[in-house]
Amino acid sequence: MTIVRPFAIALAALAAALAPVAQADTLIENIQGISVDRDGKVTRFTAMWIDDDGRVKQLLDRKDKRPKRTDFAVDGNGAYVIPGLIDSHLHMMGLGFAQLTIDLSDTKSLAEAQAKIRAYAAKHPDRRWIVGGGWNQVNWGLGRFPTAAELDAAVPDRPVLLERVDGHAVWANSAAMAAAGITAKTANPAGGRIERVAGGKTPAGVFVDRATALFDAVVPAPRPEDRDLALAKAQELLLSKGVTAAADMGTRIEDWQSFRRAGDLGWLRMRIMSYASGIDAMALIGGPGPTPWLYKDKLRLNGVKLYLDGALGSRGAWLKQPYADDAGNTGLPLMTGAQLRNMMSRAALDKFQVAVHSIGDAANAEVLDAIAEMTDTYKGDRRWRIEHAQIVSPSDIARFGKYGIVASMQPTHQTSDRIMAEARLGPDRLAGAYAWRSIAAAGGHLAFGSDAPVEAPDAFAGIAAAISRTDADGQPFGGWMPQEAITREAALAAYTSGGAWAGFAEGRFGELKPGEWADFVIVDRDPLMASPADIRATKVQETWVGGERVYSAK
Amino acid sequence: MTIVRPFAIALAALAAALAPVAQADTLIENIQGISVDRDGKVTRFTAMWIDDDGRVKQLLDRKDKRPKRTDFAVDGNGAYVIPGLIDSHLHMMGLGFAQLTIDLSDTKSLAEAQAKIRAYAAKHPDRRWIVGGGWNQVNWGLGRFPTAAELDAAVPDRPVLLERVDGHAVWANSAAMAAAGITAKTANPAGGRIERVAGGKTPAGVFVDRATALFDAVVPAPRPEDRDLALAKAQELLLSKGVTAAADMGTRIEDWQSFRRAGDLGWLRMRIMSYASGIDAMALIGGPGPTPWLYKDKLRLNGVKLYLDGALGSRGAWLKQPYADDAGNTGLPLMTGAQLRNMMSRAALDKFQVAVHSIGDAANAEVLDAIAEMTDTYKGDRRWRIEHAQIVSPSDIARFGKYGIVASMQPTHQTSDRIMAEARLGPDRLAGAYAWRSIAAAGGHLAFGSDAPVEAPDAFAGIAAAISRTDADGQPFGGWMPQEAITREAALAAYTSGGAWAGFAEGRFGELKPGEWADFVIVDRDPLMASPADIRATKVQETWVGGERVYSAK
Repeated sequence: MTIVRPFAIALAALAAALAPVAQADTLIENIQGISVDRDGKVTRFTAMWIDDDGRVKQLLDRKDKRPKRTDFAVDGNGAYVIPGLIDSHLHMMGLGFAQLTIDLSDTKSLAEAQAKIRAYAAKHPDRRWIVGGGWNQVNWGLGRFPTAAELDAAVPDRPVLLERVDGHAVWANSAAMAAAGITAKTANPAGGRIERVAGGKTPAGVFVDRATALFDAVVPAPRPEDRDLALAKAQELLLSKGVTAAADMGTRIEDWQSFRRAGDLGWLRMRIMSYASGIDAMALIGGPGPTPWLYKDKLRLNGVKLYLDGALGSRGAWLKQPYADDAGNTGLPLMTGAQLRNMMSRAALDKFQVAVHSIGDAANAEVLDAIAEMTDTYKGDRRWRIEHAQIVSPSDIARFGKYGIVASMQPTHQTSDRIMAEARLGPDRLAGAYAWRSIAAAGGHLAFGSDAPVEAPDAFAGIAAAISRTDADGQPFGGWMPQEAITREAALAAYTSGGAWAGFAEGRFGELKPGEWADFVIVDRDPLMASPADIRATKVQETWVGGERVYSAK
Repeated sequence: MTIVRPFAIALAALAAALAPVAQADTLIENIQGISVDRDGKVTRFTAMWIDDDGRVKQLLDRKDKRPKRTDFAVDGNGAYVIPGLIDSHLHMMGLGFAQLTIDLSDTKSLAEAQAKIRAYAAKHPDRRWIVGGGWNQVNWGLGRFPTAAELDAAVPDRPVLLERVDGHAVWANSAAMAAAGITAKTANPAGGRIERVAGGKTPAGVFVDRATALFDAVVPAPRPEDRDLALAKAQELLLSKGVTAAADMGTRIEDWQSFRRAGDLGWLRMRIMSYASGIDAMALIGGPGPTPWLYKDKLRLNGVKLYLDGALGSRGAWLKQPYADDAGNTGLPLMTGAQLRNMMSRAALDKFQVAVHSIGDAANAEVLDAIAEMTDTYKGDRRWRIEHAQIVSPSDIARFGKYGIVASMQPTHQTSDRIMAEARLGPDRLAGAYAWRSIAAAGGHLAFGSDAPVEAPDAFAGIAAAISRTDADGQPFGGWMPQEAITREAALAAYTSGGAWAGFAEGRFGELKPGEWADFVIVDRDPLMASPADIRATKVQETWVGGERVYSAK
């Protein structure tokens, strides 16, 4: 998309002279525009008129009369324009920090890993510690753990600490062990093991399970400038994926301060709907209630994120019946029902929105019970959110509709998890697993996200999974529990208008329609027409937020 | 001052149509205007032209040609106009909370106190606890402490906790004791005494010294809405006193969040230069450095407040020689010299401004030493601040000039403290006490404040003290160490342009001159002509910030 004829008219020149903040309005012509409302109703248009402020002024079809004069006219060259994508569940700072650490998951040998670590350290002379992960000695054909000496060979001058791919071990160099005060005299902590050099007590460099905690106190906490850099990296990545707004699930005060610095200093280019990490952070960040929308609707503390249970993979999800692959274990709630209700009340009293992480069917039932009990007390438009809503008893699904609950789900979790989920649940308890179609049919409000950095923040992969229940390889053929697939329109809505509604942002962004911010993505294909595989392959060419181009692939 | 002929011209109407944020410019005529720069040079003017944004566009003298057209013209009716006053050392939230609690210091009998408490509780049904202080059973002619039963008679339904005027005891009602779990079985804590009902163990209602801490855990922490109310109250009081900007000395993150809410929601009407309460709060609030000026120069985190010693009255000030009235006691530094330097370095490295509380001559010498050592490392315009600088060895005074240090002093402390200071120091060590003239003569940069709520935030009382070294009663005759008195011009500068410079705000506010915000106060007399007693009696008629009237006495 190129700006073909910028022209300033007399009126605009006068306006600029009188009001230094005034921008110019823009007509984007010759596009194939798509917007979808929460009911899946699609609007198509061929031109979009954006006002001075960066809001949509008018959508025009081919036959509509064009405005007589605009400050700028842009030729879209037939590009596909869709609303800016909304990721309704991710972790901004986690995603950013993941970009700032070294990833060894693609290394095929120890030597290759050493070379990558060496290069990374050389590229980042200002990092006091080199941290990262992803290594797997099995992939290296090593037949043993790597050693501190082998890491010293890559980086001798600074501490290096690298997590194994499964998160159950760390590999440290000598400087890291020295920083942590670890010597031959250091005993194995309970639940942990320090690998030792053969025939001696000298630590070998790998620390397993609880022994990894020996480093907790010495790995430096990120500095504010590190946090700001992480935020900038996360934003850059998201905008390159066409994500113009995100719900940050678990904002701490330090994170919030980074968001505000970005806003104050003018480099916040996407929109963040924040959910504080617990009740204390909520009260500290929001005070007596949610913050106003700040920085032209780029930032708001909406509410609080609470955790009721853990994850399915680690058998932390709270199930009604024991795990199929772990008899007698049902997982555990992370708090009592009374604690959950107290926290939900505390938040709801001050009109904070409540988002509860619930994976297992017992956890989902508990949250649904709590919401049911609270609807009489906390009236009005509450939009209770259940995050993940992964395993829900079929008999509980109707309650999503009854109480108007937001089901904040992550389609790619379904494709990533399906084999694991079958093992954990067995064949007879899958009816309510990742059941977005059933939840929507019952009247629940879908909002889709990625859970990045757990999954890549790729909404096109999410849409493909949501409509096909197949993964990137097209597996399983015909889809996993394909009756839960939804239409392209519904999937796109859950990534746009649905995500906006889930964050009280409807009317501000989420659709391309007059009065909303001109947040849009220029892509190379029509997501409502392409096959699942083609949708996955969508290329983001440009991303615009509030009428400004904030990313270009060129 | 009344707006006599508002008129909108064609151009303005056009501008308003094009740019909704555009305001109107205003000419204030027929005033006796005064501004003073940091050198004490006075500018007098009879009209002030304020631009659309609220900045001074032009100062005009009687003979100057008036602008051809302005949107509004205001007749000042001959009023005196001085720059908005800057209080360079106060505690915003402390000042606000002092307005929100009950003050019994004016009660003359127990019955009067009970009536006042009863009325206060009735007026504030939403306060879960009634707290306050100022009572003195001696003034009531009671011959004994008051009892819990006597407080129950005033407020039976909610906890009440009232501090004695000296801060060394609290008076609690039964509900407060119950909330704290205090019974006949509660033992006297070390260093404290629980008054008991005669002939028994039942607590009588008064708790002395360390026994006051029994309530610490149960008196509820202020809620965010309480903090916001306190901020609003402090702001209201300050604006009514003509204070348009203040340095908040010891901002915690919770305080900062209130400041930001005020800014975000549009009710921050004065300017706050914030100094974080220690290094951790500094890093949390500011991140990698001072914040930008926010909300049209209404808020900025400038730096950090550190405490090197305590106060003179309680013999916590750190002296070079023992207290005259406490042989062998020199007071104590609150941290080592190494700790002080580490914190100053940590702040200066990220360009935070450093403000160190130093009362005693040893403390002042230590800070001066530290600054001397750091000037080579932390070059540039640092504006190291010493807060209070109360007792400085004459031989140390020259260093205020050598290193360009800000002496942030409180003139009314001198008049309040002088008898106590003479007792603490003896007659031979007063030469460098409250020595603003000597410090200024040596090249130090004066910035005056109140230390509110410790003293009333009354800059006119401060100016009177600064120029006369006498108190409200004119005592002592001729002034205390009158050689330290400064001129009216220098005193007004220390409350305006000097305070701005001390907070890196010159060019933004502090003077009435083109380009600076139109922050001004309309008063009933000329502070550069009036006697000290008359200056004290100055009436603030109106206060304006950024070209908007934010207080009117009418």
